[in-house]
Order: sequence, then C-alpha cells, then structure tokens
Amino acid sequence: MTSQVLGIDIGGTKVAIATSAAGNRLHETHRATNATDGVEAVVDRIVRSARELVEADPAPLAAVGVVSPGVIREDGVALAPNNPGWETLRLRETFAAAFPGVPVAVMNDVKAGALAESVSGALVGTRSGIYLNLGTGLSAAFVVDGTVVEGAHGAAGEIAYQLPGPRHPVAFADGRAPLEEIVSGQAIGANASAVLGRRVDAAEAFALAPTQPAVAAVVDAAIEALATHVANLSVALDPDRVVLAGGLVGQAVVLVPRLAAVLRRTVPFPPEVLVARHPFDAPLAGALVIAARAAALPLVR
Amino acid sequence: MTSQVLGIDIGGTKVAIATSAAGNRLHETHRATNATDGVEAVVDRIVRSARELVEADPAPLAAVGVVSPGVIREDGVALAPNNPGWETLRLRETFAAAFPGVPVAVMNDVKAGALAESVSGALVGTRSGIYLNLGTGLSAAFVVDGTVVEGAHGAAGEIAYQLPGPRHPVAFADGRAPLEEIVSGQAIGANASAVLGRRVDAAEAFALAPTQPAVAAVVDAAIEALATHVANLSVALDPDRVVLAGGLVGQAVVLVPRLAAVLRRTVPFPPEVLVARHPFDAPLAGALVIAARAAALPLVR
Repeated sequence: MTSQVLGIDIGGTKVAIATSAAGNRLHETHRATNATDGVEAVVDRIVRSARELVEADPAPLAAVGVVSPGVIREDGVALAPNNPGWETLRLRETFAAAFPGVPVAVMNDVKAGALAESVSGALVGTRSGIYLNLGTGLSAAFVVDGTVVEGAHGAAGEIAYQLPGPRHPVAFADGRAPLEEIVSGQAIGANASAVLGRRVDAAEAFALAPTQPAVAAVVDAAIEALATHVANLSVALDPDRVVLAGGLVGQAVVLVPRLAAVLRRTVPFPPEVLVARHPFDAPLAGALVIAARAAALPLVR
Repeated sequence: MTSQVLGIDIGGTKVAIATSAAGNRLHETHRATNATDGVEAVVDRIVRSARELVEADPAPLAAVGVVSPGVIREDGVALAPNNPGWETLRLRETFAAAFPGVPVAVMNDVKAGALAESVSGALVGTRSGIYLNLGTGLSAAFVVDGTVVEGAHGAAGEIAYQLPGPRHPVAFADGRAPLEEIVSGQAIGANASAVLGRRVDAAEAFALAPTQPAVAAVVDAAIEALATHVANLSVALDPDRVVLAGGLVGQAVVLVPRLAAVLRRTVPFPPEVLVARHPFDAPLAGALVIAARAAALPLVR
C-alpha cells in the first residue's frame, strides 16, 4: 500500500494541514492559529486536526513535515515574534511525540516555500533564484544550485530587517523591522489607514491608490522600496528568476511590471519576475516536500 | 619531483604572477597592466613574464590559474570596462595555447580572492561568508557552505551596481555603477578632490577627514553607504564573517569599527568583521588555488 505523508504549515494567523500520497494531495484543512491562546493550546489543536486528516485515509503515515516562521532550533524557535511562547518550543520533538514512530522534519516556512517552488514550481531549473514572501510581513529565500540557503544561523532571507537607507533611525536592535515597516501587507494597510483616517487593508489601499493621491503615495513608497531591495538582492545573487508569493500576489498586475522595470535598469543580467506556482500555499507544499524526503531516509529516531 | 603551478592575476592596472609548489610560493612578480596597449600586447607581456617565472624553477609545470575582473566566458570577458578589448578575449583558450599540455583554469578575480580566503584565510570554517573587495572599485563575493556563489550568469557579487536608494537617477543601464560612485577608492578620491579643488587619492582623503569637514563628509557618506549595504547583505545571507580586502584595507582602523557598529544594530546574528588574511593579493592566492585544483584533475584537453 502507498504510504501518506503529513504536512503542517503553522503561520502567525492561519494553520494549513495537508496529506499527500505519491505526490498527490489527499486531504487538506485550514484553520485560525489563535496564537494568543498559548503555544500548548495551539499545538494541541493542530495535532488533533492533523490526526483526523491522516485517519481519513487508510494509507500508513510515513513522515511528517512541519514548517513555521522563525529560525527553528532544537530548543526553540527564534525570530518569530507573532507566535508567543515559541521561543522555547521544541518544535520537532513536540510533533515527534505526537506522531511516534515516523520521522518528523522541520523547516522555516518561507524557505520551505522556496524549496517547493524549486522542486515543482516557478524555480525549477534555475541556477539561482529569489523567492519573495509578500504577505502580512516580508521575507525572502534564496535557492542556489538547487539548495535553499540557510545562512550561518538559519536566518538567511529575513529581509524585513534590511535598512531602507543610511543612518535609518530604527533597527533590529530596537525591536523593529525597518524594511517591513514600509513594504508589507500590514505596513501598507496601517500607513494607508493613517492617511485616510479609517481602517483599510493592503488590498483596499491598492484599490484606492488610483483615485486617492495620499494612498497612492503610501503604495508607491512600498513598491519603490521593494523594487530597490529586490534589485539590490538581484545584483548580489545574479538570479535567473524572482518569484512572488504571499497575499500581495493579488496585486501582481501592479507589482510585476514595476519590479521588472527597475530590475531591467539596474541588474546586469535582469532576472524574470513571475508569480509562484503555489502563490498562497508554497510553505504547505514545502512541508509535504520535507516530509516526503524524510520518509525516504532511514528512520534514525 | 614535486610539480609547480602558475597563478596569474590580471587587474585593470596591475598584473601579479606567482608560482608555487606543495602550497609554498616559489617566485612572484608584479607589473603594470598598461591595458591601453591593447589586449594582444598585454597578454603577450604576461605570458613572457610568466614563462620566465616558471623557468626559474626546475619543477615541471602542472597547471595554470588565471583570474581577471569581469564575467569570464569561453568567448569573452563581460563586465570588465577597465580592460578594453577583453569583451572578445577567449581567456582560457589564450593561456592554454601559451602553456600547452597543462590544464588552465580561469575565474573572476574577486571570487578567486574569496576562494583563497575560504581555503586558507579568514573564511576558513565559515558556513556563510561575505568577502568585500574595497579597492579602486567595489565588489564582493559570497561563500556558502564552502562554495563561491557564481550566480546564474557568473555575475553574483557585482555590488558596484547596487542602488543607494529608491528612484536613484542613474543605473547600470546608463553605463553607470551607482554604489561604486560613492563607495570605492576611486570615488572617494574623486569626490574629495572635487571639494578640495586639488587631486587627492582615497588614502589622503581619509587622512584629511579629521581636519577638513568637507572631506569628512565625503568619507562619511562612503562609509555609511558601505555599512548600510554590507548590513543589508548580511541580513540577507546571515554570514558568520565579513572579510575586507583591497586597497582600502589600509583604512581598516576606521572601517572595521564603523561597519561592526552598524552590523551589531541591524543584523539578527551580527557577523564578525575582519581583515582578510591576504588583504592585497587574495586574487593571486586564488589563482594558485584554482591551478592546484586543476592539476589534481585528469587532463581533459
């Protein structure tokens, strides 16, 4: 009998869970994270949902892949400020205890998204690729010669912390994320809300920009900052392709030509800009990839 | 008898040539490139000097390594504006004809410098490293898991073309190098000369800065722009170490603490900043490394 694998993507606001067998999705479920309930309640609900999903198919479970924001270490998850309590969560160990007898692989969610795109998406066949996660927050992952770049501490691609320019007044050391405060769904929504005097989200801000100059200025500043940083990353890494994923992909009709225009002027060998094959669930697809890879490995624990 | 290898570093203004055996330098010579004499005359002089150096030792020649600025392809060298005529120079083939019967390896000079530092220098043992070439021009190379990142077109690390900020008025497409025009030995010299009304070089500019506010502003702008871009590269690549090489290493007493201060505030896991082990001749050391590696390979041509 073909075995199944389980993939779990734990975001700050949403959890996505799926099973697959022989590369095909079997079942899938989505729910709110409700991170403020605390890490134990969150993990408990996820494990129960995941078990239900696995039990919906008779195939034996071969492995589990869990992806989450932050830098996932054996003794805790660093750089995940939206998931309170995770700084001491032993993520792999916790899910290994919940699914005994099968290997459990863990990975940063955005790096897993880039992995999924490089295995079966818009980064297949690239020598060097940049994956941009344009969602509530901002981050990236780099695929070099088929491998996702981890960095010395697993923190490669956390571009939220990049500086928009010299002598920028705030930085990571102040608990801030300078670039993300200009370029992210949350920032565009908040900055547009401030100029309008009422609450709008990023999608509304993009919709209002053509008729509201003050909102246009907010959206424009975000796009130009994003384009400048993506151009500078592209100069540095010389990618074949830049791939967009996350909620702001809904604005691709505006974003793609603006990014491409700056890349064409700036980068000696301008990369293509395109939308991810899995624009909204690449991390879940990546969780299934790391599970399938773990299933093929001898069971060491 | 131990064999010797030959390394050649062809810069825009200087050529360095060395031989080594069993990892030890045998002989070394330096001369002006005189690039305006044309590519044939330049190559001819280099070949003659190199042959003399090889003949100074009885050990048989096992391989040649040649490094140069630009993107080295079979049919020419791209992105090397200071070496006129090189855009159609078949670099490997030319040196293979001059040294028949031995393998000839070629590599970009800055990437070769980073390779040398990763093999026997300040990047040994790093998981992720950034090598900065702060000379007449500005460029970088990245070492990830022991391998120098080439990029999709061999142009990774050409950070001279990065943009200092959004909507910067000039770019690569205009034949310009926006960041290098602020941050490089040549730029600091030229910009300081402009405010002083007399010609000074970068070293003089650094020396005058403490007493001349207008020169201090030029030097300061260069250091802050460099620190911002190195911080952003470090956020992106999460290196263990940032290593400085090139002529401006003479200003390390000023540069290292300024860079380290911005990295400490900006980067979640701040890398160390240190001077290269081969601050002024890492590319030549790299030419010897690629020659030694080529010597160990079966002779395929």
